[in-house]
Amino acid sequence: MMIDEILEKHCADFFIQHSDINLYYATRFKALNCVFYIVGRKGDFLIVPDMEKNRALRESRVKNVISLGDLGYHERRKSVKDSRKAIAEVLADFLRNKGAKKIVVPTDFPAFLTVRFIEEFRVEVIENPFLKIRAVKSPEEVEMIRDVSTAVIDAFNFSLDIIKKGEKNCDYIRDEIEKFLFLKGYLAENTIVSSGEVSSDPHSSGGTVEDHVLIDIFPKSRKHSYYSDFTRTVIVRKNMEIEEMLEAVIEAQESAISIIRDGVTARDVHYKVCDVLESYGYKTIRQKADEGFIHSTGHGIGLELHEEPRIFDNDEVLRSGMVFTVEPGLYYRKVGGVRVEDVVVVKRDGCEVLTRYPKRIYLKV
Amino acid sequence: MMIDEILEKHCADFFIQHSDINLYYATRFKALNCVFYIVGRKGDFLIVPDMEKNRALRESRVKNVISLGDLGYHERRKSVKDSRKAIAEVLADFLRNKGAKKIVVPTDFPAFLTVRFIEEFRVEVIENPFLKIRAVKSPEEVEMIRDVSTAVIDAFNFSLDIIKKGEKNCDYIRDEIEKFLFLKGYLAENTIVSSGEVSSDPHSSGGTVEDHVLIDIFPKSRKHSYYSDFTRTVIVRKNMEIEEMLEAVIEAQESAISIIRDGVTARDVHYKVCDVLESYGYKTIRQKADEGFIHSTGHGIGLELHEEPRIFDNDEVLRSGMVFTVEPGLYYRKVGGVRVEDVVVVKRDGCEVLTRYPKRIYLKV
Repeated sequence: MMIDEILEKHCADFFIQHSDINLYYATRFKALNCVFYIVGRKGDFLIVPDMEKNRALRESRVKNVISLGDLGYHERRKSVKDSRKAIAEVLADFLRNKGAKKIVVPTDFPAFLTVRFIEEFRVEVIENPFLKIRAVKSPEEVEMIRDVSTAVIDAFNFSLDIIKKGEKNCDYIRDEIEKFLFLKGYLAENTIVSSGEVSSDPHSSGGTVEDHVLIDIFPKSRKHSYYSDFTRTVIVRKNMEIEEMLEAVIEAQESAISIIRDGVTARDVHYKVCDVLESYGYKTIRQKADEGFIHSTGHGIGLELHEEPRIFDNDEVLRSGMVFTVEPGLYYRKVGGVRVEDVVVVKRDGCEVLTRYPKRIYLKV
Repeated sequence: MMIDEILEKHCADFFIQHSDINLYYATRFKALNCVFYIVGRKGDFLIVPDMEKNRALRESRVKNVISLGDLGYHERRKSVKDSRKAIAEVLADFLRNKGAKKIVVPTDFPAFLTVRFIEEFRVEVIENPFLKIRAVKSPEEVEMIRDVSTAVIDAFNFSLDIIKKGEKNCDYIRDEIEKFLFLKGYLAENTIVSSGEVSSDPHSSGGTVEDHVLIDIFPKSRKHSYYSDFTRTVIVRKNMEIEEMLEAVIEAQESAISIIRDGVTARDVHYKVCDVLESYGYKTIRQKADEGFIHSTGHGIGLELHEEPRIFDNDEVLRSGMVFTVEPGLYYRKVGGVRVEDVVVVKRDGCEVLTRYPKRIYLKV
């Protein structure tokens, strides 16, 4: 639903977005603090600090740019002696002058404004409508995610070269991956390179390369700010248990990808992963296991690393243009963890993998 | 004031901090979403997603770590069919069971929780108490900021070498600075390298090196996450107007630094800058000028680039251990901009500059 439909549905006059990634998405204005995007039935307004007004007029998609000074912020700040209170007052003035009776705000809207607005308007807290809007990507957005995906694979190949040379220190490999990407214009933080027992915790990084190494890289472009996310598990020494786990995970991932198309639900995809893994006797989150497949199947990706849609036990219907990860894994404390992750774009009759790369990687170190 | 004094002052039973940098500061737990730090009169609690419980027990300073699952989140999610509502319900249960009547939350506390809590408790929105606590740094924090300050100066020297070789492209110089810092373990984003007319906008970067170049670098450590912030204006070709502006800015900055000590107010420092600049006939923000010195004198720095104290026209009393920038500048649309910025730590009888570096830099290109 677009914002005008949201206003209609909630019988509201205005939706107010504070400065975060949704404001950037909607306006293409990179804002720090004290920026508000106000959407009404008759138009939209971008309210910015005085110093940002010219940049906002230049960079944002919004025509009605108003500075806090234009709204009488400085006089208010002097009289109420508190900058936040002054912002709340001038925004309330603005809404009142525009005839607002009811407003809708997103779940993470700041408390100081929420509480002030409740005094005067009917306020309803709603799931941020931009989260659903952002879930379906434009062709331009897909190209930006494809760009980062290409860089991720270059970085992964670079890390394989390091491992082939005999490097065993996961922290060192991680650091080299992040440097490689930065020099190419991408920022990767919290990259995971794990081995041995460390890899049995899906989010932990570190350890010494033993039988296998799990590499999960999720950089964003420093130019256009879109993310990609990619994981491979590399076998460096024979270990039947790990290799069997990896084979099951690859089959689960490929089975899940094979059913993705416009109209299937997130649950269909998640359960396909669980079906395959359970068929090999592994425990899954569907069975409330605390070892085995213990996380969700994937998450949307775009301007945020984790966004809509969530690929889990939920009813969300996947639509053409949605971009998300498919990343089953298996984790056993005494054995270690394996995971395989790709980014896909949903199409009418299937999906396209943006991170195409072999999944069976056996290195001779 | 510590949190127990805040509870006392507001006659409140609990203060609730959602996941942001203040939560990290208080608990040393790097949290993504859905983490809450709840401080009561009899103890504090860290509430985390199930998957994060072990890491929270390992990494955080809080002894009472409780998972959302421990609080019955999963059953609630099934019954209310909305993950946010379920979180609000289990947190409300927790507070009710602990006997809460009144709670205090910070200004940016999320609306979905604020509105739910108002139904059942007395809720007061307060300035986040951690902002004031964080303003005074421990000796360990000062050492971390000193570490980044050293790196900033290395990066600045590196950029001078590039300019000496005749490089004229500000974007290229900026990119080289950011790469240099990343390879050393620091992340600089939105670095400003500006010249000519571009430099007349304090926040703009880019242009071609003409008579002078303004370089403003503010990286954080990728290891300990503390920031530094440093600006110098380099003269590369004779321009009397720019050089006179720079001399006035240097005198204003040094005069301001000379009065900083425990007990002076932010206004004293800000007005000292204005006094000096006005004495040379430049317009300042105190006179509501829109050219000249058009921003505040500085800002606290630590885990955030901009934090308390704000060095502006305000009553804040500067205390030993506070760390902030002193960064006067002059900006004229037809001439360009100059700025000089250092980071200082307040001491009982003065202050220490953490970014010691010459201020008059005349390069022969």
